[in-house]
Amino acid sequence: MSPITTHTINHQVRLAARPQGLPTAANWQLTEEPVAEPADGGVLVKVLAISLDPAMRGWMNEGKSYIPPVDLGAVMRAGGVGVVVATRNPDFAVGDFVAGGTDVQEYWSVASGQIARSGLHKIDLRLGTLTQWLNVLGMPGMTGYFGLVDVGQPQAGETLVVSGAAGAVGQTVGQLAKIKGCRVVGIAGGPAKCAWVVKELGYDACIDYKQPAPEGVAKWDAVREGLKQHCPEGVDIYFDNVGGEILDTVLTRIRRKARIVICGAISQYNATGAVQGPKNYLSLLVNRARMEGIVAFDYAARYPQAIAELAGYLKDGRMQSREDVVQGGVQAFPETLTKLFTGENFGKLVLEIDTA
Amino acid sequence: MSPITTHTINHQVRLAARPQGLPTAANWQLTEEPVAEPADGGVLVKVLAISLDPAMRGWMNEGKSYIPPVDLGAVMRAGGVGVVVATRNPDFAVGDFVAGGTDVQEYWSVASGQIARSGLHKIDLRLGTLTQWLNVLGMPGMTGYFGLVDVGQPQAGETLVVSGAAGAVGQTVGQLAKIKGCRVVGIAGGPAKCAWVVKELGYDACIDYKQPAPEGVAKWDAVREGLKQHCPEGVDIYFDNVGGEILDTVLTRIRRKARIVICGAISQYNATGAVQGPKNYLSLLVNRARMEGIVAFDYAARYPQAIAELAGYLKDGRMQSREDVVQGGVQAFPETLTKLFTGENFGKLVLEIDTA
Repeated sequence: MSPITTHTINHQVRLAARPQGLPTAANWQLTEEPVAEPADGGVLVKVLAISLDPAMRGWMNEGKSYIPPVDLGAVMRAGGVGVVVATRNPDFAVGDFVAGGTDVQEYWSVASGQIARSGLHKIDLRLGTLTQWLNVLGMPGMTGYFGLVDVGQPQAGETLVVSGAAGAVGQTVGQLAKIKGCRVVGIAGGPAKCAWVVKELGYDACIDYKQPAPEGVAKWDAVREGLKQHCPEGVDIYFDNVGGEILDTVLTRIRRKARIVICGAISQYNATGAVQGPKNYLSLLVNRARMEGIVAFDYAARYPQAIAELAGYLKDGRMQSREDVVQGGVQAFPETLTKLFTGENFGKLVLEIDTA
Repeated sequence: MSPITTHTINHQVRLAARPQGLPTAANWQLTEEPVAEPADGGVLVKVLAISLDPAMRGWMNEGKSYIPPVDLGAVMRAGGVGVVVATRNPDFAVGDFVAGGTDVQEYWSVASGQIARSGLHKIDLRLGTLTQWLNVLGMPGMTGYFGLVDVGQPQAGETLVVSGAAGAVGQTVGQLAKIKGCRVVGIAGGPAKCAWVVKELGYDACIDYKQPAPEGVAKWDAVREGLKQHCPEGVDIYFDNVGGEILDTVLTRIRRKARIVICGAISQYNATGAVQGPKNYLSLLVNRARMEGIVAFDYAARYPQAIAELAGYLKDGRMQSREDVVQGGVQAFPETLTKLFTGENFGKLVLEIDTA
């Protein structure tokens, strides 16, 4: 760990222009500024890794959402983990590992009055690795935990389907649902991800939505066929990370009193036209089912309890995690982000900024 | 009341062909058959009035829904009220007023083994008039009651918006929500319906979705403007009977933790293409809101309690009802049904089959 000097430079990625469709290099600006020693009550964190999340695409848009958009010219919002390298705050010591809203930059300076709002908090590496703190023990894990437990309300013996099954939220949801006694069917892109969630995470089955039509079959919908095969009795809980056609197809297979957890819609985030609404939504009426949104922030008071439970499963081997760690520092952020939307990442996508 | 003779004829409306779009005369066949005396345990009912419901359009389609479709050649399904004219069942006496699944015909013969399944039950005209038993005290009332109370879960002080505000379900929902302490804003077509729900039913406001653009205003969405004006703080509960554009517009105005009760989608029932899915459904995520379907049948065990409560409100004047009673007997059924989809009816649409 190199000491802070007046010559230390903080490289940052700022939002230069709002994207139309998939973000490109033109949407970003790489800037640098000197790193200052913290003022009284402040903390300086060297960022070690940041989380790349589908939600980032929404934060780049103008307009109201569950949090305000990133301003043009501002450092791109991101959650991350790091280590305290300078402190004038008695609650934090040099060498403490922390997490919070680091944003996409190499140094995160948190002033005294901003600590609560910044989400800065210490993390315990005995509970999980640094990257697990961005995955199962971080925001994706919290989203999956409360989305499943509070909104999905799983009962033992029920059938749960989760899209983005090998992604950060998906791997938490699927494994936790197994622990809660559900039959779990994933939806993921490609045979490698499908094999992994079945063999390593213990899902009962996984549908490869990219699977090509068998020879001679003209009309083919891999998700529809997969659901027929693996959920012959229908779906009790659908945890949706993708929206679009897959949501519409699952809606045709839900059971009476089904719960659809709306966590995201990655298939729609780069749409330049209108979002595709679920044209089969009247299945909610036919099946007396509900569709409900989840935002993890609402459950912040219960994060410690969820983290303790999930860390216990990681420790006793009932839960595993997989992170796709990209090296290259902040410079690699623009290119790495697009991996999320092309489905190239395998597991929770993390960008390493520096090593501890 | 004329006695049953071997010459008494039962006129019936049967489904002759499944419609594409709006049903026409070609979808129906008028048939007749002699009326037989009931066998042991059976009851013969002279039908006095039937309920015309948007749901009928769905029953005419092939394919799975919350109840099976009407078979081609079968008498069209309908709920109705009537009077017992012959009986060999000790639970029913000649002259008893009854309700149940009469279908679209003049005489309803219920065999001994079919009584439970047919929904045949006595009604008490001290609690409400014959047509009120097809409205607030009938299936629309039950749908509105349980949709509001169990799914919508209104809290005093919340803002409720109901579409189809002057319709059968709408009038129950809006008035009941007022009684439960909500601020109620209706959506209805035309100034007469809007004035009625405000002046007679006590809604706080009503948005005329057919209102033309004010002079000089090029881009006009009457529902959007009305919601801005009448629900400046947003919508806590939206009770949706119409779907389509109106649902999409309300989705842009929901509050945190809003509940959207999906009761129907009359704007979509005659669509010959795909149903229009709510493209703003991700507002459920942003607002941690839920969208849930209601089918009244699920609450059958609690009908008596709901009827008692609603009859009390009718008696003490806190609730009113309006029925649009069309005369003309079963022959008038095909033409009358289309009034529902053009919005011509004002209040619960009832077809009088005969007079008591």
